[in-house]
Amino acid sequence: MVSSIENISKNITDIYKEEHKESYAAWLQYKNIENNELANEYKQWCSSLNVLGNSLVIESAKKELSLGISSMLGIQPELNSEPKQSGLVLAAGNSIDNLVDADFGQLNEDGYIIKTVTTDESNRIFLVGKTESGVLYAAFHLLRLLQEGKNLQKLDIVENPKNQLRMLNQWDNMDGGIERGYAGNSIFYKDNQFSDELNRIEDYARLLSSVGINGISINNVNVHQVETNLITSDLLPKVAEVAGIFRAYGITTFLSVNYASTIQIGNLSTADPLDPEVKQWWKDKAEEIYSYIPDFGGFLVKADSEHRPGPFTYGRNHAEGANMLAEALQPFNGIVLWRCFVYNCLQDWRDRSTDRARAAYDHFKPLDGQFHSNVILQIKNGPMDFQVREGVSPLFGAMENTNQMLEFQVTQEYTGQQRHLCYLVPQWKEILDFDTYAKGKGSEVKKVVDGSLFQYKYSGITAVSNIGNDYNWTGHTLAQANLYGFGRLTWNPDLSAETITDEWIAQTFGQDELINELVSKMLLESWSIYEKYTSPLGVGWMVNPHHHYGPNVDGYEYDVWGTYHFADWKGIGVDRTVKTGTGYSSQYFKENADMYENLETCPDELLLFFHHVPYTHTLKSGVTVIQHIYNTHFEGVEEAQGLIEAWSQLKDKIDSERYEDVLARLQEQANHSMKWRDIINTYFNRKSGIKDEQNRKIY
Amino acid sequence: MVSSIENISKNITDIYKEEHKESYAAWLQYKNIENNELANEYKQWCSSLNVLGNSLVIESAKKELSLGISSMLGIQPELNSEPKQSGLVLAAGNSIDNLVDADFGQLNEDGYIIKTVTTDESNRIFLVGKTESGVLYAAFHLLRLLQEGKNLQKLDIVENPKNQLRMLNQWDNMDGGIERGYAGNSIFYKDNQFSDELNRIEDYARLLSSVGINGISINNVNVHQVETNLITSDLLPKVAEVAGIFRAYGITTFLSVNYASTIQIGNLSTADPLDPEVKQWWKDKAEEIYSYIPDFGGFLVKADSEHRPGPFTYGRNHAEGANMLAEALQPFNGIVLWRCFVYNCLQDWRDRSTDRARAAYDHFKPLDGQFHSNVILQIKNGPMDFQVREGVSPLFGAMENTNQMLEFQVTQEYTGQQRHLCYLVPQWKEILDFDTYAKGKGSEVKKVVDGSLFQYKYSGITAVSNIGNDYNWTGHTLAQANLYGFGRLTWNPDLSAETITDEWIAQTFGQDELINELVSKMLLESWSIYEKYTSPLGVGWMVNPHHHYGPNVDGYEYDVWGTYHFADWKGIGVDRTVKTGTGYSSQYFKENADMYENLETCPDELLLFFHHVPYTHTLKSGVTVIQHIYNTHFEGVEEAQGLIEAWSQLKDKIDSERYEDVLARLQEQANHSMKWRDIINTYFNRKSGIKDEQNRKIY
Repeated sequence: MVSSIENISKNITDIYKEEHKESYAAWLQYKNIENNELANEYKQWCSSLNVLGNSLVIESAKKELSLGISSMLGIQPELNSEPKQSGLVLAAGNSIDNLVDADFGQLNEDGYIIKTVTTDESNRIFLVGKTESGVLYAAFHLLRLLQEGKNLQKLDIVENPKNQLRMLNQWDNMDGGIERGYAGNSIFYKDNQFSDELNRIEDYARLLSSVGINGISINNVNVHQVETNLITSDLLPKVAEVAGIFRAYGITTFLSVNYASTIQIGNLSTADPLDPEVKQWWKDKAEEIYSYIPDFGGFLVKADSEHRPGPFTYGRNHAEGANMLAEALQPFNGIVLWRCFVYNCLQDWRDRSTDRARAAYDHFKPLDGQFHSNVILQIKNGPMDFQVREGVSPLFGAMENTNQMLEFQVTQEYTGQQRHLCYLVPQWKEILDFDTYAKGKGSEVKKVVDGSLFQYKYSGITAVSNIGNDYNWTGHTLAQANLYGFGRLTWNPDLSAETITDEWIAQTFGQDELINELVSKMLLESWSIYEKYTSPLGVGWMVNPHHHYGPNVDGYEYDVWGTYHFADWKGIGVDRTVKTGTGYSSQYFKENADMYENLETCPDELLLFFHHVPYTHTLKSGVTVIQHIYNTHFEGVEEAQGLIEAWSQLKDKIDSERYEDVLARLQEQANHSMKWRDIINTYFNRKSGIKDEQNRKIY
Repeated sequence: MVSSIENISKNITDIYKEEHKESYAAWLQYKNIENNELANEYKQWCSSLNVLGNSLVIESAKKELSLGISSMLGIQPELNSEPKQSGLVLAAGNSIDNLVDADFGQLNEDGYIIKTVTTDESNRIFLVGKTESGVLYAAFHLLRLLQEGKNLQKLDIVENPKNQLRMLNQWDNMDGGIERGYAGNSIFYKDNQFSDELNRIEDYARLLSSVGINGISINNVNVHQVETNLITSDLLPKVAEVAGIFRAYGITTFLSVNYASTIQIGNLSTADPLDPEVKQWWKDKAEEIYSYIPDFGGFLVKADSEHRPGPFTYGRNHAEGANMLAEALQPFNGIVLWRCFVYNCLQDWRDRSTDRARAAYDHFKPLDGQFHSNVILQIKNGPMDFQVREGVSPLFGAMENTNQMLEFQVTQEYTGQQRHLCYLVPQWKEILDFDTYAKGKGSEVKKVVDGSLFQYKYSGITAVSNIGNDYNWTGHTLAQANLYGFGRLTWNPDLSAETITDEWIAQTFGQDELINELVSKMLLESWSIYEKYTSPLGVGWMVNPHHHYGPNVDGYEYDVWGTYHFADWKGIGVDRTVKTGTGYSSQYFKENADMYENLETCPDELLLFFHHVPYTHTLKSGVTVIQHIYNTHFEGVEEAQGLIEAWSQLKDKIDSERYEDVLARLQEQANHSMKWRDIINTYFNRKSGIKDEQNRKIY
C-alpha cells in the first residue's frame, strides 16, 4: 500500500497499476520469465531493437516492446535506428530484407510479417508491416509469443486481418455513467467533462491494439443533451486529444451523433435530411470536425430507434437519412455507421401479427443499393437484441449492394452482466460460421461482413465494449476474456474458440497446465451453463424489465417492447413460421427458411424462437419441452456450482486478488442461478401443472 | 390571463388563484349567491360580525367569514368586538347567552355550537366553541351552510369531533418530490429548502381546517439525509414559521424523525434507546424543538420498516424504542406516533409460511401495555398496504392498553394514482364500521380509534395526504373529494358517504340537481368500478413493481415483498387459514376469525385474501372464480366508459377548466382500464385454459 501522501500527485489509474497490478494488466501481464533457458534465448533476440523510420504508431510499438522486454526479461533493449545484424527489426513498408520482401505482396492494409532470418552474419527477427499499424500489431504478436513461451527460432508468420473495420462502441455518457455498463463508470468522462486520466485511456488503447482493434466510437449511441455537443468547438479539442491517444495505437476515433443536432445545436428548425440547410450544416460540421481531427473516422448513428430522432420524422427513409451524413463526410473519407436496430418499441402485446424480429429486415432490405458507398449498415447479431440465444439476423447476406457490419455485445447485458461467467466467443463463433446461403453454400456471416462475399467497400465487425473504470476493467476478471476474444475474432474469425482461450489464459495467468485446463473448461462451458438456467430453447426475454438482470418470466410479456413468449397452460413459444405465424422464417434464404419453418428440422435450441409448441412436445433430444426446462435448470445450477469447485483448485496458482474476485463472482452466480432455477421451474410448473419426472424440488 | 410583467411580483400560487380560480379553490369556492331572496336573507345575518375576544385562531375565523361573506354576498360585514343585537356572534368559552350556554356542557375540546337566537330585540347566530378552534370550525360550518343554500333561521347545532387526533401525513421530501405523490411537487419544499410560497401553505391550512383536521406531519415518514436536519437549528426556524401558519388554523405541527438521528446528526455512535446518551440527546433535542415551537405536536416514526433504522438494531423492542422518544417529549406534552408497518421486506417467495399480513399483529400485540401513555400506535387500515381491497387490520381492538390510531391513504397509490377516479369514502366507511368484536358485538374500528372502546388517552385517525402543487391540489379534480371526505369522516365517522358526497359537490360545483345526481353516482360507484377491472376478490398486488401503476399479475410474485397470489393452472389465492394456511385468520376475534376461516362464510370480496381456491370454485354470487374475473373485468371497463358519458352531460354546467381536466382523466382511465382488463383476463385465460362463458374477446 502506498501512503496517502504519496498518492496526492497520482491519479487513480496510477494507484490501480501499483495496487491492482495483475487485475489491471489484463492480458498484458509481461510477467518475469522464470525459465532461465527460455529467458536467455529470448534475451538474444530482444537485446537490440532496431527501428527503421519513425512515426507515432511505430513509437508505440517500440515503447510496448521495451516495456514487455524489460518486464519479462529484465533487460533494456538497445535502441537503434538502422537494421543491425542481430535483434528485432521493425519496419513499415518493404525493402528490408529479400526474404521478408518476398512475403510482402501478401499483406493487406493492416497485415504484417514476423520472420526469423538467420544467416552467417545475422540473427534477426523482422517485424514488418504494410503500414505502421502492421508493425504495432506485429510487436504485440511477438510479445504474445513471449508470454506464451513460444520458440522464436523459425518464425515465419504472415498475418492479415480478415476484417477491415474492427471496432468497439463505448456506450459511455458524459455524466460518467455507462449504458449497460457493469464495470464501474466511464474511463472517458466524469461529471459531464472529459476525464483527466488520459493514462487510463492510453492503457485501454494498448489493450485494444494488442488484439487488433482499429476503430472506436467513444460515446453512447443514445446521444443525450450534453453529448450532442461533442461535435462543437466546446468539446472537439478534447475529442481530438482522446483521438490522439488512440491514433498512436492505430485506432481511429468515431463519434455517435444526435440525428437532430441541427435542431438541438444548429439553430435550425428541422433535421430533414433533404433540407438544403440541414445538408449544409452537416457539411460545415464535418469540415469543422476534421479541422480538429484530420483522420476522424465518422459517425455512428442510432436513428428512429427507441425514441431517438431520425429521418422518419420527415417522411424520409433511412437511405436518405444516412446518405445526407455520408455526403458531408465523403470529402474527408469519413464513413457513416448506420444502425439497423429499428423497430416499433411501442407495440401492443395484443397484436400478434407484428414481430419485432422482422423489423430490421423489413426496414432495410427494400433499400438495398440506395445507400452511398461510405455508409455501412451496422446490424446486431440477432434480430431481437443480444439474447443468450436467438436466430442470426436474416439481414446478413440479404443486401448485396449495401455495406454491412456485424454488431456484437461484449458487455453482458443479457448474459449475466459480468456477475455471471459467460464467455461469448463460442456464441460469436456460431454466428460468424452461420451459413446464410446468400450465394449458395459457404456464404457464412463472416464472409458477408469481411466484405468478401459481395465485395463491400467497407465492412467489418463491431461490438459494445464491456469495460469501465473498475480496477480490472471488466468487473468480472474473467470477462476480460470476452474483450480479448472479440478482438482476436474480428482479426480472424477462423481462429478456434480453444485457440483464443488458450492464448488468453497463458497471457493472463501464465503458462500452467492446470490453470489452462480448468479455466479453459470453465470459459468454454460457461455460455451453455448460463443458457441452461436462464431462458429455455431460444425463447429469450425472461428477465426483469429495464435493467435486464435476474429472472422475470412475464416481465416483458404484456409490455410494449415486442418481446413475448406467449406461454399458456398448454404450451409456449413464438410462432414465426410462414404457415401459421409471423412469417419471419421466410426472411432467411431458402435452406435456412425451410430448416426453421419445419418443426422437424428446427434445431432444439431455437425451437421456441420459431415455434409455439405444447409443453409435451418431444425434442430431438428425446425429452419433452417441460422436462427439458426442468432438467436444464437443475443442471445449470449444478454446473454453476461446479465452476466454483474448478476455480477453487487454483487458489495457490493465482494471485489472491484475482482469485478472490473471481471466486466471489462465481459464488454470487451460483446463488443467483438458484433464483433463476426456482423462478423458472415454478413458473412453468404452476402454469403447466406437469410434474418433474425426477420429482426434484419445485416450489 | 395576466401579462407577464404583472406576474413578476407574484408567486405561482397567486397566479393559480387568478387563472385557475375554481380548480384552486376546491370546496371553498364561495361563489356569488345568485338567488336574490336567499342572498338577502343571508345578508341580514351576515352584515355584522361580532367577535368576542381575540386570538390567532379566532382571527382566522373572522378572516374566513369576511372572505366568504364578501365573496358570496357582495357585502363587507361590519366588525364589532362586542355582541351586537344582530348578526353573527363568535366566541370561545361560555357566558355568551343563556340559550347557548345551556348546550355548552355538551362540548368536547374542539366542539362548537351554532345556534340561531331570535328574540324581540335581537336576531343573532351564535358561533361558540369550547376553544378558539371550535369557533373556527363553527365558522367553516356556517360557510358550508351558506354554500349549500341552507336555511339559517333555526340553527341549533352542537358538533363535537368524534376523534381527538385528526391528522394528515405529508410524504413530502425536501428535494420537492413527494413519495407516492400524484399531484405535482411539494408545496412545502423545493430544492432542499422550504418553499417561499407561504400563501399556498396557508390555503392548504384553510382547506384542512374547514374539514376539521387538527394535526399535520410535514415531512415523509422515510426521513432521508436532508430531512433528518429538520430538527436542527438550521431548519427549526423554518419549521416554526410553517407551524405558525398551521397554528392559526388550529392545526398542530408534527415532524417525522429519523430513528438514527443520534448517529446521523448527534455525533453519537449508537441509536440504542436504552443508551443514556441517546436518551439525553433526545431530551435535549425535544427541549430545543419546543423552544422554537411551544405547541409542537411530536414525532411520527417509521422504524425498522423497509430498511429504516430502528430499535431492532440494538436488540430492543418497539416499546423500548418508542418510549425513549416519548419520555423526551413528555415534559412538553408531545406525543409519539409510532407506525406499525413493520414486516420482513426481504422475504423469500419460496417460503410459504411467512405471511406479511401477520406482521403488525405479531410484532405489536405482545407489547400491549408496555407503551408510555404518550405513544400512539399508528396502524394502516389493512394488514398489507392500502390495497384496493384487503382485510381490516386485526390489530385494531387487539391492544386494550395501548393507544391506537388508524392510518388511511388519501393519496391513491394503489387506487389509480389520481389518474383513475376512485372515491375512497365508501372504503373508509366499511373499515370504520368493521366490527372487531374486541368487546363483543358493537366494537367497531371507529370506536377503537375514537378512544371510546378502551378509553385511550390519545387516539384518532390519520392519513397520507393526496395533495401537491398542481393548480387543483390533487391532480384529478374529483380527487379533492377524497381529501374532503377524509376530513369529514375523521370528524364524524357516522356521517354517511352520501351526506359527505352531497356536501362536497354542492360546495365544489354549486347546487344543481343534475350535477349532484351524476357526480354523486360517479363518486360512489368509482371504488367498485376500479376494483372490478383491477385485482379480483381481494387478492391484491397485481401491479407493476415500485411505482405501482398499471397491471402486472406476476409483478410481485417472485419478489421479496411478501405479496403473492400463488396463481397456478388450477387456482389462486393466499391460504391464510389456521387449518391449512398461515394462520392469519386467527388474529381476529372469534366471530371474524370463524367467518374468514371458513370458505362458506368468507365474503366473496375477500375470498382470495383468505383462501386458495380452484378457478372453478363457485362464489356466493353463483359464478365461478374464473368467470367472476372475466365478468368483472369486462364490466369494469364498461362502467369506466360510463363515467365519461355521465360527466359529459355536465359540459355546460361546470367551468371549462375543471370539466376538461376531469374529462381527460376519465378518458385516460377508460383507456387504461382496457389495458387492465386485457392483461388480467389474458393472464388467467392462459393460465387456466378456461374459456369465457360469453365468449368475449380475450387475447
